[in-house]
Amino acid sequence: MSVLAILNRPSQDAPAHAPGAPAFHFADASAPQLSVLDLGATRGDGIFETISVGYGKPQALEHHLRRFAASARTLALPEPDLDAWREAILAAVAELEPADESYAKTVLTRGIEGDDKPTGWVYASTSPDYSRVRVEGVRVVLLDRGYRHDIEATAPWLLAGAKTLSYAVNRAVAREAARREADDVVFVSSDGVLLEGPTSTLVLRRGNVLLTPGTGLGILDGTTQANVFRYAESQGLETGFELAGPDALTGADAAWLVSSVRLAAPIRAVDGVELGIDHEFTAALNAYLKALVE
Amino acid sequence: MSVLAILNRPSQDAPAHAPGAPAFHFADASAPQLSVLDLGATRGDGIFETISVGYGKPQALEHHLRRFAASARTLALPEPDLDAWREAILAAVAELEPADESYAKTVLTRGIEGDDKPTGWVYASTSPDYSRVRVEGVRVVLLDRGYRHDIEATAPWLLAGAKTLSYAVNRAVAREAARREADDVVFVSSDGVLLEGPTSTLVLRRGNVLLTPGTGLGILDGTTQANVFRYAESQGLETGFELAGPDALTGADAAWLVSSVRLAAPIRAVDGVELGIDHEFTAALNAYLKALVE
Repeated sequence: MSVLAILNRPSQDAPAHAPGAPAFHFADASAPQLSVLDLGATRGDGIFETISVGYGKPQALEHHLRRFAASARTLALPEPDLDAWREAILAAVAELEPADESYAKTVLTRGIEGDDKPTGWVYASTSPDYSRVRVEGVRVVLLDRGYRHDIEATAPWLLAGAKTLSYAVNRAVAREAARREADDVVFVSSDGVLLEGPTSTLVLRRGNVLLTPGTGLGILDGTTQANVFRYAESQGLETGFELAGPDALTGADAAWLVSSVRLAAPIRAVDGVELGIDHEFTAALNAYLKALVE
Repeated sequence: MSVLAILNRPSQDAPAHAPGAPAFHFADASAPQLSVLDLGATRGDGIFETISVGYGKPQALEHHLRRFAASARTLALPEPDLDAWREAILAAVAELEPADESYAKTVLTRGIEGDDKPTGWVYASTSPDYSRVRVEGVRVVLLDRGYRHDIEATAPWLLAGAKTLSYAVNRAVAREAARREADDVVFVSSDGVLLEGPTSTLVLRRGNVLLTPGTGLGILDGTTQANVFRYAESQGLETGFELAGPDALTGADAAWLVSSVRLAAPIRAVDGVELGIDHEFTAALNAYLKALVE
Protein backbone atom coordinates (compact mmCIF):
# COMPACT_ATOMS: atom_id res chain seq x y z
CA MET A 1 0.00 0.00 0.00
CA SER A 2 1.26 3.46 -0.82
CA VAL A 3 0.20 7.07 -0.42
CA LEU A 4 1.19 10.12 -2.45
CA ALA A 5 0.86 13.68 -1.16
CA ILE A 6 1.78 16.52 -3.51
CA LEU A 7 2.84 19.79 -1.95
CA ASN A 8 0.96 22.88 -3.12
CA ARG A 9 3.51 25.17 -1.48
CA PRO A 10 6.81 23.28 -1.25
CA SER A 11 8.88 26.42 -0.72
CA GLN A 12 8.48 29.57 1.27
CA ASP A 13 9.88 32.04 -1.24
CA ALA A 14 8.49 30.61 -4.49
CA PRO A 15 5.01 31.17 -5.88
CA ALA A 16 2.41 28.69 -4.62
CA HIS A 17 1.10 26.18 -7.14
CA ALA A 18 -2.40 26.94 -5.94
CA PRO A 19 -2.57 30.10 -3.82
CA GLY A 20 -4.81 29.74 -0.79
CA ALA A 21 -4.92 25.95 -1.14
CA PRO A 22 -3.97 23.66 1.74
CA ALA A 23 -0.32 22.67 2.15
CA PHE A 24 -0.76 19.49 0.10
CA HIS A 25 -3.25 17.29 -1.68
CA PHE A 26 -3.40 13.52 -2.00
CA ALA A 27 -2.92 12.14 -5.49
CA ASP A 28 -2.94 8.78 -7.25
CA ALA A 29 0.57 7.32 -7.03
CA SER A 30 -0.20 4.91 -9.87
CA ALA A 31 -1.05 7.74 -12.31
CA PRO A 32 1.50 10.03 -14.00
CA GLN A 33 2.05 13.16 -11.91
CA LEU A 34 5.26 14.67 -13.30
CA SER A 35 6.04 16.65 -16.43
CA VAL A 36 8.78 15.33 -18.73
CA LEU A 37 10.15 18.87 -18.44
CA ASP A 38 10.57 18.68 -14.66
CA LEU A 39 14.23 19.33 -13.89
CA GLY A 40 14.08 16.53 -11.34
CA ALA A 41 13.56 14.10 -14.20
CA THR A 42 15.75 15.74 -16.86
CA ARG A 43 18.72 16.87 -14.73
CA GLY A 44 18.46 15.07 -11.39
CA ASP A 45 18.11 18.63 -10.10
CA GLY A 46 16.49 18.23 -6.72
CA ILE A 47 16.86 16.70 -3.28
CA PHE A 48 15.27 13.99 -1.16
CA GLU A 49 15.02 12.37 2.25
CA THR A 50 13.81 8.92 3.23
CA ILE A 51 12.28 8.83 6.69
CA SER A 52 11.70 5.61 8.56
CA VAL A 53 8.27 5.14 10.12
CA GLY A 54 8.31 2.77 13.09
CA TYR A 55 4.93 1.64 14.42
CA GLY A 56 3.29 4.62 12.67
CA LYS A 57 5.73 7.28 13.93
CA PRO A 58 8.22 9.08 11.65
CA GLN A 59 11.68 8.71 13.20
CA ALA A 60 14.31 11.44 13.44
CA LEU A 61 11.82 13.65 11.60
CA GLU A 62 13.32 16.98 12.63
CA HIS A 63 16.85 15.81 11.79
CA HIS A 64 15.62 14.72 8.32
CA LEU A 65 13.85 18.07 7.80
CA ARG A 66 16.97 20.00 8.82
CA ARG A 67 19.08 17.95 6.40
CA PHE A 68 16.47 18.46 3.66
CA ALA A 69 16.74 22.23 4.17
CA ALA A 70 20.56 22.01 4.19
CA SER A 71 20.54 20.09 0.88
CA ALA A 72 18.22 22.75 -0.58
CA ARG A 73 20.69 25.47 0.40
CA THR A 74 23.61 23.58 -1.16
CA LEU A 75 21.68 23.33 -4.43
CA ALA A 76 20.38 26.93 -4.19
CA LEU A 77 16.82 25.62 -4.29
CA PRO A 78 14.06 27.76 -2.79
CA GLU A 79 13.93 27.19 0.98
CA PRO A 80 11.49 24.35 1.69
CA ASP A 81 8.52 25.27 3.85
CA LEU A 82 9.21 22.76 6.61
CA ASP A 83 5.82 23.26 8.26
CA ALA A 84 4.10 22.29 5.01
CA TRP A 85 6.42 19.30 4.58
CA ARG A 86 5.91 18.11 8.17
CA GLU A 87 2.14 18.36 7.73
CA ALA A 88 2.24 16.41 4.45
CA ILE A 89 4.52 13.71 5.91
CA LEU A 90 2.33 13.17 8.97
CA ALA A 91 -0.83 13.09 6.85
CA ALA A 92 0.64 10.62 4.35
CA VAL A 93 1.88 8.36 7.15
CA ALA A 94 -1.53 8.51 8.86
CA GLU A 95 -3.15 7.19 5.65
CA LEU A 96 -0.93 4.10 5.59
CA GLU A 97 -2.28 0.81 6.83
CA PRO A 98 -0.74 -0.06 10.22
CA ALA A 99 2.65 -1.79 9.79
CA ASP A 100 5.69 -2.30 11.99
CA GLU A 101 7.93 -0.57 9.48
CA SER A 102 7.04 1.92 6.77
CA TYR A 103 8.80 4.90 5.22
CA ALA A 104 8.05 8.33 3.84
CA LYS A 105 10.15 9.78 1.05
CA THR A 106 10.23 13.52 0.44
CA VAL A 107 11.34 14.91 -2.94
CA LEU A 108 11.85 18.56 -3.88
CA THR A 109 12.84 19.37 -7.49
CA ARG A 110 13.54 22.68 -9.20
CA GLY A 111 10.34 22.19 -11.23
CA ILE A 112 10.02 23.16 -14.86
CA GLU A 113 12.77 25.41 -16.23
CA GLY A 114 11.69 29.04 -16.19
CA ASP A 115 8.57 28.47 -14.07
CA ASP A 116 10.25 29.21 -10.72
CA LYS A 117 7.88 26.72 -9.11
CA PRO A 118 9.61 23.84 -7.39
CA THR A 119 7.87 20.47 -7.38
CA GLY A 120 7.45 18.62 -4.10
CA TRP A 121 5.88 15.38 -3.00
CA VAL A 122 5.79 12.85 -0.18
CA TYR A 123 5.53 9.17 -1.07
CA ALA A 124 4.83 6.79 1.79
CA SER A 125 4.73 3.03 1.69
CA THR A 126 5.39 -0.14 3.65
CA SER A 127 9.09 -0.98 3.99
CA PRO A 128 10.70 -4.09 2.50
CA ASP A 129 11.52 -6.78 5.04
CA TYR A 130 15.13 -6.25 6.13
CA SER A 131 14.99 -8.57 9.14
CA ARG A 132 17.38 -11.10 7.61
CA VAL A 133 20.09 -8.66 6.50
CA ARG A 134 20.05 -7.08 9.98
CA VAL A 135 21.14 -10.44 11.37
CA GLU A 136 23.25 -11.98 8.61
CA GLY A 137 24.87 -8.74 7.48
CA VAL A 138 26.28 -7.48 4.19
CA ARG A 139 29.43 -8.25 2.25
CA VAL A 140 30.90 -4.92 1.12
CA VAL A 141 33.51 -3.87 -1.40
CA LEU A 142 35.62 -0.75 -1.10
CA LEU A 143 35.19 1.51 -4.14
CA ASP A 144 36.94 4.74 -5.04
CA ARG A 145 34.50 7.68 -4.82
CA GLY A 146 36.79 9.66 -7.13
CA TYR A 147 36.88 12.75 -4.91
CA ARG A 148 39.46 13.77 -2.33
CA HIS A 149 38.18 13.83 1.26
CA ASP A 150 38.37 17.65 1.37
CA ILE A 151 36.13 18.23 -1.66
CA GLU A 152 33.22 19.68 0.28
CA ALA A 153 35.36 22.65 1.30
CA THR A 154 37.46 23.06 -1.86
CA ALA A 155 34.77 22.51 -4.51
CA PRO A 156 31.27 23.09 -3.09
CA TRP A 157 29.84 23.12 -6.63
CA LEU A 158 30.27 19.33 -6.68
CA LEU A 159 27.40 19.17 -4.14
CA ALA A 160 29.17 16.48 -2.11
CA GLY A 161 27.35 16.15 1.20
CA ALA A 162 23.93 17.10 -0.23
CA LYS A 163 21.28 14.43 -0.76
CA THR A 164 20.51 15.14 -4.42
CA LEU A 165 18.39 13.28 -6.98
CA SER A 166 21.56 12.82 -9.06
CA TYR A 167 22.12 9.34 -7.68
CA ALA A 168 23.08 7.43 -10.84
CA VAL A 169 26.55 6.74 -9.38
CA ASN A 170 25.04 5.41 -6.13
CA ARG A 171 23.05 2.97 -8.28
CA ALA A 172 26.04 2.06 -10.46
CA VAL A 173 28.21 1.13 -7.50
CA ALA A 174 25.50 -1.26 -6.31
CA ARG A 175 25.79 -3.02 -9.69
CA GLU A 176 29.59 -3.07 -9.34
CA ALA A 177 29.21 -4.64 -5.89
CA ALA A 178 26.93 -7.33 -7.33
CA ARG A 179 29.49 -8.05 -10.07
CA ARG A 180 32.01 -8.65 -7.29
CA GLU A 181 29.52 -10.90 -5.45
CA ALA A 182 29.01 -8.40 -2.68
CA ASP A 183 25.87 -6.74 -1.31
CA ASP A 184 26.93 -3.18 -0.68
CA VAL A 185 29.72 -0.62 -0.99
CA VAL A 186 31.91 1.49 1.25
CA PHE A 187 33.25 4.51 -0.60
CA VAL A 188 36.89 5.50 -0.14
CA SER A 189 38.12 8.96 -1.15
CA SER A 190 40.73 9.24 -3.91
CA ASP A 191 43.24 10.02 -1.15
CA GLY A 192 42.39 6.93 0.85
CA VAL A 193 39.89 8.04 3.49
CA LEU A 194 36.89 5.90 4.49
CA LEU A 195 33.69 7.77 3.59
CA GLU A 196 30.19 6.21 3.63
CA GLY A 197 27.96 3.73 1.84
CA PRO A 198 25.98 4.87 -1.21
CA THR A 199 22.80 5.03 0.92
CA SER A 200 24.15 4.59 4.45
CA THR A 201 26.64 5.77 7.05
CA LEU A 202 29.65 3.70 8.16
CA VAL A 203 30.03 2.96 11.86
CA LEU A 204 32.96 0.98 13.33
CA ARG A 205 33.51 -0.53 16.74
CA ARG A 206 37.01 -0.62 18.20
CA GLY A 207 37.00 -1.95 21.77
CA ASN A 208 34.51 0.18 23.69
CA VAL A 209 34.37 2.97 21.14
CA LEU A 210 31.99 3.47 18.19
CA LEU A 211 33.49 5.57 15.41
CA THR A 212 32.16 7.17 12.22
CA PRO A 213 33.94 9.31 9.61
CA GLY A 214 31.91 12.41 10.55
CA THR A 215 30.84 15.29 8.36
CA GLY A 216 32.86 17.72 6.25
CA LEU A 217 34.17 14.89 4.05
CA GLY A 218 31.60 15.36 1.31
CA ILE A 219 29.35 12.76 2.92
CA LEU A 220 25.94 12.93 4.56
CA ASP A 221 25.26 13.83 8.16
CA GLY A 222 23.73 10.48 9.12
CA THR A 223 20.37 10.66 10.86
CA THR A 224 20.48 7.00 11.87
CA GLN A 225 24.15 7.22 12.89
CA ALA A 226 23.18 9.95 15.37
CA ASN A 227 20.68 7.55 16.94
CA VAL A 228 23.21 4.71 16.91
CA PHE A 229 25.58 6.90 18.91
CA ARG A 230 22.77 7.84 21.31
CA TYR A 231 22.10 4.15 21.94
CA ALA A 232 25.80 3.31 22.31
CA GLU A 233 26.29 6.07 24.87
CA SER A 234 23.28 4.80 26.82
CA GLN A 235 25.09 1.44 26.97
CA GLY A 236 28.28 2.98 28.34
CA LEU A 237 30.24 2.97 25.08
CA GLU A 238 32.24 5.92 23.91
CA THR A 239 31.59 7.49 20.50
CA GLY A 240 33.67 9.65 18.23
CA PHE A 241 34.61 10.82 14.76
CA GLU A 242 37.72 9.56 13.01
CA LEU A 243 39.40 10.28 9.71
CA ALA A 244 40.74 6.83 8.82
CA GLY A 245 41.82 4.62 5.97
CA PRO A 246 40.52 1.17 4.94
CA ASP A 247 42.72 -0.52 7.58
CA ALA A 248 40.45 0.92 10.26
CA LEU A 249 37.56 -1.02 8.73
CA THR A 250 39.33 -4.30 8.09
CA GLY A 251 40.86 -4.11 11.56
CA ALA A 252 37.64 -3.14 13.37
CA ASP A 253 36.07 -5.35 16.04
CA ALA A 254 32.77 -4.91 14.23
CA ALA A 255 31.24 -2.53 11.67
CA TRP A 256 27.83 -1.54 10.33
CA LEU A 257 26.24 0.36 7.48
CA VAL A 258 23.41 2.26 9.12
CA SER A 259 20.49 3.93 7.34
CA SER A 260 16.92 5.02 7.98
CA VAL A 261 14.95 2.13 6.59
CA ARG A 262 17.35 -0.83 6.64
CA LEU A 263 18.64 0.32 10.06
CA ALA A 264 21.95 -1.29 11.18
CA ALA A 265 23.29 -3.86 8.70
CA PRO A 266 26.40 -5.54 10.15
CA ILE A 267 29.34 -5.80 7.73
CA ARG A 268 30.32 -9.47 7.47
CA ALA A 269 33.06 -9.19 4.85
CA VAL A 270 35.23 -6.48 3.26
CA ASP A 271 36.55 -7.20 -0.23
CA GLY A 272 36.00 -10.91 0.43
CA VAL A 273 37.75 -10.98 3.82
CA GLU A 274 35.49 -11.98 6.73
CA LEU A 275 34.72 -9.51 9.50
CA GLY A 276 33.18 -10.64 12.78
CA ILE A 277 29.56 -9.75 13.57
CA ASP A 278 28.61 -8.72 17.10
CA HIS A 279 25.21 -10.42 17.00
CA GLU A 280 24.05 -9.49 20.46
CA PHE A 281 24.86 -5.79 20.18
CA THR A 282 23.46 -5.61 16.62
CA ALA A 283 20.14 -7.16 17.66
CA ALA A 284 19.79 -4.82 20.64
CA LEU A 285 20.74 -1.83 18.48
CA ASN A 286 18.16 -2.68 15.80
CA ALA A 287 15.47 -3.24 18.40
CA TYR A 288 16.26 0.22 19.79
CA LEU A 289 16.24 1.86 16.33
CA LYS A 290 12.99 0.16 15.32
CA ALA A 291 11.20 1.26 18.47
CA LEU A 292 12.40 4.88 18.41
CA VAL A 293 9.69 7.46 18.78
CA GLU A 294 11.09 10.93 18.61
CA MET B 1 5.85 25.09 -29.97
CA SER B 2 6.81 21.66 -28.67
CA VAL B 3 6.11 18.02 -29.45
CA LEU B 4 6.32 14.99 -27.18
CA ALA B 5 6.64 11.43 -28.48
CA ILE B 6 6.64 8.62 -25.92
CA LEU B 7 8.36 5.38 -26.89
CA ASN B 8 6.28 2.23 -26.57
CA ARG B 9 9.36 0.06 -27.02
CA PRO B 10 12.41 2.05 -25.89
CA SER B 11 14.63 -1.01 -25.52
CA GLN B 12 15.14 -4.18 -27.48
CA ASP B 13 15.52 -6.59 -24.59
CA ALA B 14 12.89 -5.25 -22.21
CA PRO B 15 9.15 -5.93 -22.34
CA ALA B 16 7.19 -3.52 -24.54
CA HIS B 17 4.89 -1.09 -22.77
CA ALA B 18 2.18 -1.97 -25.28
CA PRO B 19 3.01 -5.13 -27.26
CA GLY B 20 2.19 -4.83 -30.94
CA ALA B 21 1.82 -1.04 -30.70
CA PRO B 22 3.76 1.31 -32.99
CA ALA B 23 7.24 2.44 -31.90
CA PHE B 24 5.88 5.59 -30.23
CA HIS B 25 2.80 7.67 -29.60
CA PHE B 26 2.42 11.43 -29.41
CA ALA B 27 1.41 12.82 -26.04
CA ASP B 28 0.56 16.15 -24.46
CA ALA B 29 3.81 17.74 -23.26
CA SER B 30 1.88 20.10 -20.99
CA ALA B 31 0.22 17.23 -19.09
CA PRO B 32 1.94 15.03 -16.49
CA GLN B 33 3.39 11.92 -18.13
CA LEU B 34 5.81 10.51 -15.56
CA SER B 35 5.33 8.55 -12.37
CA VAL B 36 6.85 9.94 -9.18
CA LEU B 37 8.36 6.45 -8.88
CA ASP B 38 10.26 6.68 -12.17
CA LEU B 39 13.94 6.17 -11.37
CA GLY B 40 14.75 8.98 -13.80
CA ALA B 41 13.02 11.36 -11.41
CA THR B 42 14.00 9.79 -8.08
CA ARG B 43 17.62 8.79 -8.83
CA GLY B 44 18.66 10.59 -12.01
CA ASP B 45 19.01 7.04 -13.28
CA GLY B 46 18.88 7.40 -17.04
CA ILE B 47 20.55 8.97 -20.04
CA PHE B 48 19.84 11.63 -22.64
CA GLU B 49 20.94 13.25 -25.89
CA THR B 50 20.11 16.67 -27.29
CA ILE B 51 20.10 16.72 -31.08
CA SER B 52 20.20 19.94 -33.05
CA VAL B 53 17.68 20.30 -35.88
CA GLY B 54 18.82 22.68 -38.60
CA TYR B 55 16.24 23.71 -41.18
CA GLY B 56 14.14 20.67 -40.23
CA LYS B 57 16.97 18.08 -40.37
CA PRO B 58 18.39 16.37 -37.27
CA GLN B 59 22.16 16.87 -37.28
CA ALA B 60 24.76 14.23 -36.41
CA LEU B 61 21.81 11.93 -35.70
CA GLU B 62 23.72 8.66 -36.03
CA HIS B 63 26.57 9.95 -33.84
CA HIS B 64 24.01 10.95 -31.17
CA LEU B 65 22.31 7.57 -31.39
CA ARG B 66 25.65 5.75 -31.05
CA ARG B 67 26.52 7.85 -28.00
CA PHE B 68 23.04 7.22 -26.55
CA ALA B 69 23.63 3.47 -26.87
CA ALA B 70 27.12 3.82 -25.35
CA SER B 71 25.71 5.72 -22.35
CA ALA B 72 23.08 2.98 -21.93
CA ARG B 73 25.84 0.36 -21.80
CA THR B 74 27.81 2.34 -19.21
CA LEU B 75 24.71 2.50 -17.00
CA ALA B 76 23.76 -1.14 -17.72
CA LEU B 77 20.42 0.04 -19.07
CA PRO B 78 18.58 -2.19 -21.54
CA GLU B 79 19.96 -1.60 -25.04
CA PRO B 80 17.91 1.15 -26.69
CA ASP B 81 16.09 0.14 -29.87
CA LEU B 82 17.75 2.71 -32.12
CA ASP B 83 15.33 2.10 -34.99
CA ALA B 84 12.42 2.98 -32.73
CA TRP B 85 14.25 6.05 -31.43
CA ARG B 86 15.17 7.24 -34.93
CA GLU B 87 11.57 6.86 -36.03
CA ALA B 88 10.28 8.79 -33.02
CA ILE B 89 12.86 11.57 -33.45
CA LEU B 90 12.06 12.06 -37.14
CA ALA B 91 8.31 12.01 -36.48
CA ALA B 92 8.57 14.52 -33.63
CA VAL B 93 10.75 16.83 -35.70
CA ALA B 94 8.31 16.59 -38.62
CA GLU B 95 5.52 17.83 -36.35
CA LEU B 96 7.41 20.99 -35.42
CA GLU B 97 6.56 24.24 -37.13
CA PRO B 98 9.30 25.19 -39.62
CA ALA B 99 12.16 27.03 -37.90
CA ASP B 100 15.82 27.65 -38.67
CA GLU B 101 16.91 25.99 -35.46
CA SER B 102 15.10 23.45 -33.31
CA TYR B 103 16.18 20.54 -31.17
CA ALA B 104 15.06 17.07 -30.19
CA LYS B 105 15.91 15.67 -26.78
CA THR B 106 15.87 11.93 -26.14
CA VAL B 107 15.57 10.56 -22.60
CA LEU B 108 15.78 6.93 -21.50
CA THR B 109 15.27 6.12 -17.81
CA ARG B 110 15.33 2.82 -15.93
CA GLY B 111 11.56 3.20 -15.36
CA ILE B 112 9.84 2.18 -12.16
CA GLU B 113 11.87 0.02 -9.77
CA GLY B 114 11.03 -3.64 -10.24
CA ASP B 115 8.99 -3.15 -13.43
CA ASP B 116 11.92 -3.82 -15.82
CA LYS B 117 10.32 -1.40 -18.28
CA PRO B 118 12.51 1.54 -19.16
CA THR B 119 10.81 4.86 -19.88
CA GLY B 120 11.67 6.70 -23.09
CA TRP B 121 10.57 9.90 -24.74
CA VAL B 122 11.53 12.45 -27.38
CA TYR B 123 10.80 16.10 -26.69
CA ALA B 124 11.23 18.47 -29.63
CA SER B 125 10.96 22.25 -29.60
CA THR B 126 12.25 25.44 -31.15
CA SER B 127 15.74 26.41 -29.97
CA PRO B 128 16.50 29.56 -28.00
CA ASP B 129 18.17 32.32 -30.02
CA TYR B 130 21.93 31.90 -29.54
CA SER B 131 22.95 34.25 -32.38
CA ARG B 132 24.41 36.84 -30.02
CA VAL B 133 26.52 34.48 -27.90
CA ARG B 134 27.96 32.93 -31.08
CA VAL B 135 29.40 36.35 -31.95
CA GLU B 136 30.15 37.94 -28.58
CA GLY B 137 31.31 34.77 -26.88
CA VAL B 138 31.29 33.53 -23.29
CA ARG B 139 33.37 34.38 -20.23
CA VAL B 140 34.39 31.10 -18.59
CA VAL B 141 35.80 30.12 -15.22
CA LEU B 142 37.96 27.09 -14.61
CA LEU B 143 36.43 24.78 -11.98
CA ASP B 144 37.77 21.61 -10.41
CA ARG B 145 35.74 18.59 -11.59
CA GLY B 146 36.96 16.69 -8.54
CA TYR B 147 38.05 13.60 -10.50
CA ARG B 148 41.47 12.69 -11.82
CA HIS B 149 41.75 12.61 -15.63
CA ASP B 150 42.10 8.80 -15.61
CA ILE B 151 38.86 8.13 -13.74
CA GLU B 152 37.03 6.58 -16.70
CA ALA B 153 39.50 3.70 -16.73
CA THR B 154 40.18 3.36 -13.00
CA ALA B 155 36.62 3.80 -11.65
CA PRO B 156 34.02 3.09 -14.37
CA TRP B 157 31.28 2.98 -11.71
CA LEU B 158 31.53 6.78 -11.50
CA LEU B 159 29.92 6.86 -14.98
CA ALA B 160 32.25 9.62 -16.15
CA GLY B 161 31.92 9.91 -19.92
CA ALA B 162 28.25 8.83 -19.98
CA LYS B 163 25.52 11.40 -20.58
CA THR B 164 23.37 10.65 -17.54
CA LEU B 165 20.33 12.40 -16.09
CA SER B 166 22.37 12.98 -12.91
CA TYR B 167 23.32 16.49 -13.96
CA ALA B 168 22.85 18.40 -10.70
CA VAL B 169 26.59 19.21 -10.64
CA ASN B 170 26.48 20.52 -14.21
CA ARG B 171 23.71 22.87 -13.08
CA ALA B 172 25.52 23.86 -9.88
CA VAL B 173 28.68 24.91 -11.73
CA ALA B 174 26.58 27.20 -13.93
CA ARG B 175 25.42 28.95 -10.73
CA GLU B 176 29.04 29.13 -9.51
CA ALA B 177 30.04 30.71 -12.84
CA ALA B 178 27.26 33.30 -12.47
CA ARG B 179 28.47 34.11 -8.94
CA ARG B 180 31.88 34.80 -10.46
CA GLU B 181 30.28 36.98 -13.17
CA ALA B 182 31.01 34.48 -15.90
CA ASP B 183 28.73 32.72 -18.40
CA ASP B 184 30.10 29.20 -18.52
CA VAL B 185 32.60 26.75 -17.10
CA VAL B 186 35.59 24.72 -18.25
CA PHE B 187 36.18 21.74 -15.98
CA VAL B 188 39.73 20.88 -14.92
CA SER B 189 40.56 17.46 -13.47
CA SER B 190 41.85 17.26 -9.90
CA ASP B 191 45.29 16.58 -11.39
CA GLY B 192 45.22 19.67 -13.60
CA VAL B 193 44.03 18.47 -17.02
CA LEU B 194 41.60 20.52 -19.16
CA LEU B 195 38.39 18.52 -19.61
CA GLU B 196 35.15 19.96 -21.08
CA GLY B 197 32.30 22.36 -20.36
CA PRO B 198 29.29 21.13 -18.36
CA THR B 199 27.25 20.88 -21.58
CA SER B 200 29.91 21.38 -24.28
CA THR B 201 33.28 20.30 -25.65
CA LEU B 202 36.39 22.47 -25.46
CA VAL B 203 38.21 23.27 -28.71
CA LEU B 204 41.41 25.35 -28.87
CA ARG B 205 43.23 26.92 -31.80
CA ARG B 206 47.00 27.11 -31.72
CA GLY B 207 48.37 28.47 -34.99
CA ASN B 208 46.96 26.29 -37.74
CA VAL B 209 45.91 23.46 -35.42
CA LEU B 210 42.57 22.87 -33.70
CA LEU B 211 42.89 20.81 -30.53
CA THR B 212 40.45 19.13 -28.15
CA PRO B 213 41.09 17.05 -25.01
CA GLY B 214 39.74 13.89 -26.67
CA THR B 215 37.97 10.95 -25.08
CA GLY B 216 39.05 8.58 -22.30
CA LEU B 217 39.26 11.42 -19.78
CA GLY B 218 35.81 10.86 -18.31
CA ILE B 219 34.32 13.37 -20.72
CA LEU B 220 31.87 13.10 -23.60
CA ASP B 221 32.74 12.18 -27.15
CA GLY B 222 31.62 15.50 -28.69
CA THR B 223 29.25 15.21 -31.63
CA THR B 224 29.63 18.90 -32.53
CA GLN B 225 33.39 18.79 -31.98
CA ALA B 226 33.61 16.05 -34.62
CA ASN B 227 31.88 18.37 -37.10
CA VAL B 228 34.06 21.30 -36.07
CA PHE B 229 37.12 19.22 -36.90
CA ARG B 230 35.56 18.19 -40.22
CA TYR B 231 35.06 21.85 -41.11
CA ALA B 232 38.55 22.84 -39.96
CA GLU B 233 40.14 20.11 -42.08
CA SER B 234 38.15 21.28 -45.11
CA GLN B 235 39.73 24.71 -44.53
CA GLY B 236 43.25 23.29 -44.48
CA LEU B 237 43.71 23.35 -40.71
CA GLU B 238 45.18 20.45 -38.81
CA THR B 239 43.27 18.84 -35.94
CA GLY B 240 44.34 16.76 -33.01
CA PHE B 241 43.84 15.59 -29.44
CA GLU B 242 45.93 16.94 -26.60
CA LEU B 243 46.17 16.26 -22.89
CA ALA B 244 46.91 19.75 -21.57
CA GLY B 245 46.68 21.98 -18.54
CA PRO B 246 44.95 25.35 -18.15
CA ASP B 247 47.96 27.16 -19.70
CA ALA B 248 47.01 25.66 -23.05
CA LEU B 249 43.68 27.47 -22.84
CA THR B 250 44.93 30.81 -21.56
CA GLY B 251 47.74 30.71 -24.13
CA ALA B 252 45.55 29.64 -27.07
CA ASP B 253 45.11 31.83 -30.15
CA ALA B 254 41.36 31.22 -29.83
CA ALA B 255 39.04 28.79 -28.08
CA TRP B 256 35.41 27.67 -28.22
CA LEU B 257 32.89 25.70 -26.25
CA VAL B 258 31.02 23.71 -28.87
CA SER B 259 27.69 21.92 -28.41
CA SER B 260 24.74 20.70 -30.43
CA VAL B 261 22.25 23.52 -29.98
CA ARG B 262 24.35 26.57 -29.07
CA LEU B 263 26.98 25.50 -31.68
CA ALA B 264 30.39 27.23 -31.38
CA ALA B 265 30.53 29.82 -28.59
CA PRO B 266 33.90 31.61 -28.67
CA ILE B 267 35.59 31.96 -25.28
CA ARG B 268 36.26 35.66 -24.67
CA ALA B 269 37.72 35.45 -21.17
CA VAL B 270 39.14 32.81 -18.82
CA ASP B 271 38.92 33.58 -15.08
CA GLY B 272 38.55 37.26 -15.96
CA VAL B 273 41.52 37.42 -18.35
CA GLU B 274 40.59 38.34 -21.93
CA LEU B 275 41.09 35.87 -24.75
CA GLY B 276 40.99 36.96 -28.39
CA ILE B 277 38.01 35.95 -30.56
CA ASP B 278 38.60 34.92 -34.16
CA HIS B 279 35.38 36.48 -35.45
CA GLU B 280 35.75 35.54 -39.09
CA PHE B 281 36.51 31.88 -38.48
CA THR B 282 33.82 31.63 -35.78
CA ALA B 283 31.14 33.06 -38.08
CA ALA B 284 32.09 30.73 -40.93
CA LEU B 285 32.19 27.77 -38.54
CA ASN B 286 28.74 28.50 -37.14
CA ALA B 287 27.29 28.99 -40.62
CA TYR B 288 28.70 25.57 -41.53
CA LEU B 289 27.35 23.90 -38.36
CA LYS B 290 23.92 25.49 -38.76
CA ALA B 291 23.58 24.33 -42.36
CA LEU B 292 24.78 20.76 -41.78
CA VAL B 293 22.55 18.07 -43.19
CA GLU B 294 23.86 14.66 -42.38
